[in-house]
Amino acid sequence: MAAVKLSKDIIRSFVDSFDTILVDCDGVLWAGSKLLTHSVDTINFLKENGKRVFYVTNNSTKTRSQYLSRLLQIGYNAEEREIATSGFLVASYLKSIDFDKKVYLIGSKGLSEELSNHGINHTPPGPESMETDIKSYISSEFKFEDDIGAVVVGFDEYISYPKILQACNYLSRPDCLFLATNTDETFPMEIPLVVPGTGTMVKAIQTPSGRIPQVFGKPFPPMLQAISKHCDIIPERTLMVGDRLNTDINFGRNCNLQTLLVLSGVTTLIQLNQQEELGDKSLIPQYYTDSLGDIFRLLTNDQ
Amino acid sequence: MAAVKLSKDIIRSFVDSFDTILVDCDGVLWAGSKLLTHSVDTINFLKENGKRVFYVTNNSTKTRSQYLSRLLQIGYNAEEREIATSGFLVASYLKSIDFDKKVYLIGSKGLSEELSNHGINHTPPGPESMETDIKSYISSEFKFEDDIGAVVVGFDEYISYPKILQACNYLSRPDCLFLATNTDETFPMEIPLVVPGTGTMVKAIQTPSGRIPQVFGKPFPPMLQAISKHCDIIPERTLMVGDRLNTDINFGRNCNLQTLLVLSGVTTLIQLNQQEELGDKSLIPQYYTDSLGDIFRLLTNDQ
Repeated sequence: MAAVKLSKDIIRSFVDSFDTILVDCDGVLWAGSKLLTHSVDTINFLKENGKRVFYVTNNSTKTRSQYLSRLLQIGYNAEEREIATSGFLVASYLKSIDFDKKVYLIGSKGLSEELSNHGINHTPPGPESMETDIKSYISSEFKFEDDIGAVVVGFDEYISYPKILQACNYLSRPDCLFLATNTDETFPMEIPLVVPGTGTMVKAIQTPSGRIPQVFGKPFPPMLQAISKHCDIIPERTLMVGDRLNTDINFGRNCNLQTLLVLSGVTTLIQLNQQEELGDKSLIPQYYTDSLGDIFRLLTNDQ
Repeated sequence: MAAVKLSKDIIRSFVDSFDTILVDCDGVLWAGSKLLTHSVDTINFLKENGKRVFYVTNNSTKTRSQYLSRLLQIGYNAEEREIATSGFLVASYLKSIDFDKKVYLIGSKGLSEELSNHGINHTPPGPESMETDIKSYISSEFKFEDDIGAVVVGFDEYISYPKILQACNYLSRPDCLFLATNTDETFPMEIPLVVPGTGTMVKAIQTPSGRIPQVFGKPFPPMLQAISKHCDIIPERTLMVGDRLNTDINFGRNCNLQTLLVLSGVTTLIQLNQQEELGDKSLIPQYYTDSLGDIFRLLTNDQ
């Protein structure tokens, strides 16, 4: 099976086939610090023509309101209620279950702020480096906090042995929740640099603790469930647009949505073709195109 | 299937059934700082009666000569050539392939020393913490060293984001080797504390790099191959003694050795019984006993 490239011939029926569009941010609306031609035009045109748009991102290092500021600044027609970040999902989940203990946080300032916004008590983010050696460290008297009821893991550039050890020991309590924002292996980059993502932190804690986290980001379904709470989603009339096969496209496939891959981010056409040859349908989009702006371009005959 | 408990009735035929004994150290010869009754007597008695003994450990934080000092100090009859640590195996492997580039090291001082003992050039061990934030860090000018030809991962209590990122970027060069001392999830502890082991560091690098390491420690076969180089090993007449099912016993099973589990370390009788119910033969020993000293006790009628 092969993904269909968007073209003039099919653009009208393609756009008519969905009412709702879930759009990944980095690599789709922008690529790092680079803006992508006609992306803003596409989103705003679709909204003006009655489509509902939701901005869905696995990035937990920024809050919803930080995302809103960026979207508005670039010119996207957006409201805060249309934005779902993986950090927002974790925080609203804890609020929804009336979580009244404390979170042991491995994550960023943004995730900390999102937890605070939801009234969730948590340990502070930031560095906690190994100031001694392992022998002195483990023989020191640990003061594990009694009221920790969940370990939350998001992206944390200050990941360290002391943090991993503390998280694992909280997780050895069977009633301690283990929540992860996402499991992305790497961050998308414009430069040829491998930048380890949240999956690194999650695996570092999953391995010694032997616990499997509940993951809120794509490709897992909580993101769609969160959006469905506030409005009716008909999966077959909903389009997921993203630049990653194992998060965005896999998420769309898992939730029975329509799927469009854009080649403006992580995935190259060569990688898409390799995936098509492997034949795992859950990682192959129905449609692909160079960038989101192509939709506007094809609809308006703009070259 | 169930493991057979060592008893007076079978001890003589059991001991007659092997010529060579591979013995794990921590949890078998000692438990942390605690000595185990008759362990020394057992090993020395077996050696005096013509058995060959090899000390095999996944611990890469100490050199072979440090292990020798500890064994001799406690009273074990031992020579350096009888000791195989996972760090020693990695270093001798690199020497055996005439590796003449530089190693990017994630590991301890002990592993660094073992590499130096084999003439392997490598980056220094020790802390390298995140002194800035991710944005400044990845936009700084990396000076990746051209002559790195291998990433070696052992236990490193100073694991950090900068180290993980550098390792992954060296591993993005297809000809860069990826070697790990072992993948133990945790360290055995006398106190109820989960202490993350080398598996934590390995997974943190494996996840973003997408590379699978060559692992030298148990349960993988290189340890037996290293011993076999210097003396003839007949697997069915060789006994592996250890306290962990997923390293020691699995190693013995993978190499078709006889296997004896001692309950003086990580594994409890309840855990052994649970494993027996699950029925995965590769994790069930042929024999078990409370501690290594039982062999001497049963042979000499000492209570």
